[in-house]
Amino acid sequence: MQPYRTTRRIEFCDTDMAGIVHFANFFRFMESAEVEFLRLRGLSVKLDWEGRAIGFPRVSATCDYLKPARFEEVLDVAVAIDNLGTKSVTFGFVFSRHGEDIARGKITSVCCLVKPGNQLEAIEIPATYRQRLLAEGDRV
Amino acid sequence: MQPYRTTRRIEFCDTDMAGIVHFANFFRFMESAEVEFLRLRGLSVKLDWEGRAIGFPRVSATCDYLKPARFEEVLDVAVAIDNLGTKSVTFGFVFSRHGEDIARGKITSVCCLVKPGNQLEAIEIPATYRQRLLAEGDRV
Amino acid sequence: MQPYRTTRRIEFCDTDMAGIVHFANFFRFMESAEVEFLRLRGLSVKLDWEGRAIGFPRVSATCDYLKPARFEEVLDVAVAIDNLGTKSVTFGFVFSRHGEDIARGKITSVCCLVKPGNQLEAIEIPATYRQRLLAEGDRV
Amino acid sequence: MQPYRTTRRIEFCDTDMAGIVHFANFFRFMESAEVEFLRLRGLSVKLDWEGRAIGFPRVSATCDYLKPARFEEVLDVAVAIDNLGTKSVTFGFVFSRHGEDIARGKITSVCCLVKPGNQLEAIEIPATYRQRLLAEGDRV
Repeated sequence: MQPYRTTRRIEFCDTDMAGIVHFANFFRFMESAEVEFLRLRGLSVKLDWEGRAIGFPRVSATCDYLKPARFEEVLDVAVAIDNLGTKSVTFGFVFSRHGEDIARGKITSVCCLVKPGNQLEAIEIPATYRQRLLAEGDRV
Repeated sequence: MQPYRTTRRIEFCDTDMAGIVHFANFFRFMESAEVEFLRLRGLSVKLDWEGRAIGFPRVSATCDYLKPARFEEVLDVAVAIDNLGTKSVTFGFVFSRHGEDIARGKITSVCCLVKPGNQLEAIEIPATYRQRLLAEGDRV
Repeated sequence: MQPYRTTRRIEFCDTDMAGIVHFANFFRFMESAEVEFLRLRGLSVKLDWEGRAIGFPRVSATCDYLKPARFEEVLDVAVAIDNLGTKSVTFGFVFSRHGEDIARGKITSVCCLVKPGNQLEAIEIPATYRQRLLAEGDRV
Repeated sequence: MQPYRTTRRIEFCDTDMAGIVHFANFFRFMESAEVEFLRLRGLSVKLDWEGRAIGFPRVSATCDYLKPARFEEVLDVAVAIDNLGTKSVTFGFVFSRHGEDIARGKITSVCCLVKPGNQLEAIEIPATYRQRLLAEGDRV
């Protein structure tokens, strides 16, 4: 499957006093791209699914920074499923600018039942959710 | 060297609609603990050092999330130098609550000369900076 | 009643490429000081109170910026109840540094019942909550 | 002059444990819309202008919240110049959803010369900058 491609424009508040994007913000950018990937498939990171409240809390996140990104720049973002387990999913991300890689990261989440009081219990990714995850996106 | 220990109280805006700390915020918490570690040694992540503007842009950041953290909780944070290279330094962090690990992460930074227009050039960590980095903290 | 006084140290990620604290962060600082004020009285901005889930969504927030604040600075923060209505409360905040005012702001919130699905319904501030709000803080 | 209209989709990290957009984030949304308004006119909040580094630090920001906004919603944002002084400019913002107002805010900034060390000195808004500010946007 080809990576899904979107863009992200750097906002003023994404920068820090070093004049570049603060490194922690790339994790927000990754999540936003993941959510967009999911939305195109009628999915999300927290939703009611077949009568159950499910969510995907993160168990791991990593990012390598190759070049700084700056205010007003538009980054290209490629999103792909890196690994799909029984209960977990890993998304991989590549940020680039004019074809040059800026940052590469991964986020791994575990499918959880969200119980009263926001208590979490890991469950298998529902078959119907999994099916959509692997389908081509067709929604807006 | 024993890890440096500090604490971090979870703020309302650190949480997300899942009722737990948003995963990206742990990177802010790590940086804050690193800065505190540095401050006790008279150092920082961006400063004038022997007449030169130096900074430590991040080249890698990673975090594993073991348990969710919630609003108003006070996390214990342990910070230690995980690796000290010629040009780079890696800090390791462990977040815990009542002795139970919540999250573990690492941040690797490269020592850079900050040139006009915030352009960055990797340099060796100055010997005097390195010396302080390895000393016990004694400042407030 | 004397204002409650606390402090806030500026973190690296609070700054932007202008080298100063990004203006939006002062609203996070205000909320954090408000929560600390409430915590000392056994209260919070979202909690179970006498068997009901209540919250205090904000209806208005304002800030005037007098001087820039910078990385590593420790700001003094004064918090006081500016107005206490039947259903709403306004907190006033003054940020200063070495006695010089940096910023002044206000946040007005309405007491709400938090219903399933996070639906909100304005209610009168419970008498017992109001009583604590007006008491001197005595908790840690 | 008609307000400039853009949109903003609520991201997961924009929400808090109350299940709604954290109030401080509306200030980020306002700034982002302001920057978009400026960009269409070849302007920005921090830029080199006729050989001088100028910026627009904020002196005042305010927001009234009418209805909560939630994850995945797309808000309509209207931006207009509310007041244009000699040295300052105030932008007004209205956030709405399906024609219903969600929030209204204002940001006032002062034109400043950015001197070495990020020191700021208020100056008159350059005539050429002012001219563009009042022109219809024509850039992408």
